[in-house]
Amino acid sequence: MRSAACREGCMVFLKNCWYMAGWSEELPAGALLARTFLEQPVVLFRRGDGRPAALLDRCPHRVAPLSRGTLVGDTLRCIYHGLRFDAAGQCVENPHGAIPAKACVQGFEVAERDGILWIWMGERTAADPARVPDLSHMARVPAAAQSRGSMPSACHYQLIVDNVADLSHVEYLHATTLGGGAFVENRPVVSESGDEVVIELSSHGRNAPPVYDRFLPQPGVPVDFVNRVTWVPAGLLKLDISVTPLGMPREAGLQTFNAHIVTPETRTSSHYWYWLTREYRQDDAEMTRLRHELMTRVFIEEDKPIIEAQQRLLGETDLFDAAPALLATDAGSIRIRRIMKQLLVREREGRA
Amino acid sequence: MRSAACREGCMVFLKNCWYMAGWSEELPAGALLARTFLEQPVVLFRRGDGRPAALLDRCPHRVAPLSRGTLVGDTLRCIYHGLRFDAAGQCVENPHGAIPAKACVQGFEVAERDGILWIWMGERTAADPARVPDLSHMARVPAAAQSRGSMPSACHYQLIVDNVADLSHVEYLHATTLGGGAFVENRPVVSESGDEVVIELSSHGRNAPPVYDRFLPQPGVPVDFVNRVTWVPAGLLKLDISVTPLGMPREAGLQTFNAHIVTPETRTSSHYWYWLTREYRQDDAEMTRLRHELMTRVFIEEDKPIIEAQQRLLGETDLFDAAPALLATDAGSIRIRRIMKQLLVREREGRA
Amino acid sequence: MRSAACREGCMVFLKNCWYMAGWSEELPAGALLARTFLEQPVVLFRRGDGRPAALLDRCPHRVAPLSRGTLVGDTLRCIYHGLRFDAAGQCVENPHGAIPAKACVQGFEVAERDGILWIWMGERTAADPARVPDLSHMARVPAAAQSRGSMPSACHYQLIVDNVADLSHVEYLHATTLGGGAFVENRPVVSESGDEVVIELSSHGRNAPPVYDRFLPQPGVPVDFVNRVTWVPAGLLKLDISVTPLGMPREAGLQTFNAHIVTPETRTSSHYWYWLTREYRQDDAEMTRLRHELMTRVFIEEDKPIIEAQQRLLGETDLFDAAPALLATDAGSIRIRRIMKQLLVREREGRA
Repeated sequence: MRSAACREGCMVFLKNCWYMAGWSEELPAGALLARTFLEQPVVLFRRGDGRPAALLDRCPHRVAPLSRGTLVGDTLRCIYHGLRFDAAGQCVENPHGAIPAKACVQGFEVAERDGILWIWMGERTAADPARVPDLSHMARVPAAAQSRGSMPSACHYQLIVDNVADLSHVEYLHATTLGGGAFVENRPVVSESGDEVVIELSSHGRNAPPVYDRFLPQPGVPVDFVNRVTWVPAGLLKLDISVTPLGMPREAGLQTFNAHIVTPETRTSSHYWYWLTREYRQDDAEMTRLRHELMTRVFIEEDKPIIEAQQRLLGETDLFDAAPALLATDAGSIRIRRIMKQLLVREREGRA
Repeated sequence: MRSAACREGCMVFLKNCWYMAGWSEELPAGALLARTFLEQPVVLFRRGDGRPAALLDRCPHRVAPLSRGTLVGDTLRCIYHGLRFDAAGQCVENPHGAIPAKACVQGFEVAERDGILWIWMGERTAADPARVPDLSHMARVPAAAQSRGSMPSACHYQLIVDNVADLSHVEYLHATTLGGGAFVENRPVVSESGDEVVIELSSHGRNAPPVYDRFLPQPGVPVDFVNRVTWVPAGLLKLDISVTPLGMPREAGLQTFNAHIVTPETRTSSHYWYWLTREYRQDDAEMTRLRHELMTRVFIEEDKPIIEAQQRLLGETDLFDAAPALLATDAGSIRIRRIMKQLLVREREGRA
Repeated sequence: MRSAACREGCMVFLKNCWYMAGWSEELPAGALLARTFLEQPVVLFRRGDGRPAALLDRCPHRVAPLSRGTLVGDTLRCIYHGLRFDAAGQCVENPHGAIPAKACVQGFEVAERDGILWIWMGERTAADPARVPDLSHMARVPAAAQSRGSMPSACHYQLIVDNVADLSHVEYLHATTLGGGAFVENRPVVSESGDEVVIELSSHGRNAPPVYDRFLPQPGVPVDFVNRVTWVPAGLLKLDISVTPLGMPREAGLQTFNAHIVTPETRTSSHYWYWLTREYRQDDAEMTRLRHELMTRVFIEEDKPIIEAQQRLLGETDLFDAAPALLATDAGSIRIRRIMKQLLVREREGRA
């Protein structure tokens, strides 16, 4: 079913990296949260001390979903025949006799930071806590200036990464909402830093996009506009935007820190979370609400239909295997895919 | 699409055996009943003398479903171009000219016994009327102490057989409804009788499961509890339960005869019928109604979600090819699968 | 996925022929009409001078559907990143830099005649305007005596062609609506004319089918009944019916010109349009309405369920690869399939 391109290219998922599994508050104490990541069913829960844990959501006895079971202290009991597993996936009780050697279920490393649960779908021993993404600059923002949302999307996660990596689309897809001209008059500068890719677009001396202009101390003035996307493998896109009236210090302008975080669910569906924070008017909860509503509408009504249409037209073909015409604005996407390919090769060889 | 395991294992259906096709009353005189068995579309109807008949539900001319046609005496006329077939599948009328040699449709043997229609999906000549399952001990029960239901399930039929063959699950999946402890404190004894498998669990001296205890002449007393499952290839499970206060004759206790009958529809869906009868308080129609409601709720709300989740997680893999951890309580399922494998080999070689 | 039979037989679509793309009025000025033909997504629009154009509905940059874009004069701008294409599919504007060589999208020839849009899905240069089907005899009919409808169907287009090519089914499938006996008492005469097939059935001296009889000047008289189906590759079926009281000139009778036009959408779904016109009582709009309602009900309630059931039972197998029993009434279908096979071979060799 999978083409050679698919087997080699981006259609295969990188396993050894941290993927967002959900917001911390989606996993209250005592809850069992069932989600599919990288085509694997996973059940998430918290130990008695609050630390999150994740197991393959499939009992090794008769493949019942463990997420239908019950939490007993730090362990999870299968609802079907009562096997009980600890947070590492080892069976610790078989009510029907001795514990069989095969009675263990795959466990996954989970980390929690800045209100986000991160899961490592690859080798447990390779999971590096130091590499859990740091979004503390956003977590520090007062609650009144923060908002979070999610938009499950029927597409391969890479199409969402492509969408954010090439923001020139705001001038067309979001012409009436976010556009303003800056993204066609200027070209992004793409750079790498370790495995990360930074795509920075700046304009000097033109008005701010309308969506920012009206919040400037004095609207209608020329500004320095900087839009920086930082991609962290495989699914984190940090989006920092600053709008500064010419000749003023950056603090006098407007600054937002945002994150778009994507985790593959299957090859044709993705978890998609977004987090919006703001460095100005941080006590204006109404502005936060309005900005959240605007962005949510833009994502759902403008981005989602296009991205899902791409998926339908591509089927199981990777976009870059479809011999697309490439534009200057694709530089970021191309760099990201090149690094993904290297990471996949590295992961494969590390195993061999 | 099918793996080698699938081709050899239980994912292939045994054809030479009697499968339940429906309740007798589902096929009134004059009706055409369309059902799929073993991935074959079938149309059932009755001849003028009431005897049931079954044909492949696919006209040999232009593959229209014969079940959309009309019954003309003992024959069935295709609605599309008017070919008419007798109960053996032979074309007996072509309104447009001579009857072509190819104008015949596969017919299946059908038997009727104890209010059940049984169909033989294999070689007609191999169909042995003497092997039609005998449930006359249930059919004899007064109507007020009987009930029947059905629960079409999105799973391979073997998962339903597994479910009934290992009733230790009542202590977990049905903990609040049918459980009581007997199925974890005791181990089933598995035996074979011809092609049949008997899985008997008994407990001596503990209280009856609550669902029975309250109907004992004197609740709360220690009992002999015997739960016997008899599997008859491929899809019949007879479930006889007796609860007898210690030191009393079996007739003084409670006894139920039940049948769970499964017929493959496709590799991922099954017909599932159940029949509950009772040897005590046989004139208590209200108890029958309450028992039927309880069991239906248990089947639909507790068993069905788990069995269908197993199917989704397994896909086209047979459970026993998924290298499961095996418990003592799996002895019945294992024996059943071993016999199924023998029967499949026997069927294949008989053909070769 | 496709069998050898499928690759060779009718399951492959002929590309070098005119397929109906829609009614002219479905494409008003300024509209973008997205439709799938022969498994290819297509966007239709009109140039400023009204001439229709069609492009593959897939931007060569990032495969966004062009049908979500905007019409700018005679060009189409992609909504995603703003590339602009002319009616030939050539990119004429890239807002982000030079136009890449790959930035062109496949265009298709479109013709418009008699209120119908026709599309040529094959080689543009092979498209012959002289071969656009001529239905001017129907277009000339006064509006009050015309009606049009559509019935998207979940089946391979050939099953619809088969259905019209063998009208003996009216006596069974439409027994209570259109039947009357003429189609079983007489055999069709099949002839060829170029690539076209004519299937003519006539009866002499019996009453007209009830649906016509009641509109005769004097109902209940014996008539000459002629039913002629003319198939034009691949999906046009012209259906001319005349009912003439014996001994009278044809003009004294009833005559209808009708067209059933099918275009493959995918291998398991089809566009299906029908057009009914009448040579008698041409000012009777109420009769037109009643006739349209009757036929629509017959098509939707009687034909569609059977044709779609055939598709479900056949899956990806061509009907004639399923070794069907053949009747005298299949002569038309057989001739059509033989010609289709020749045309497909001719098309394949023409390319090689």
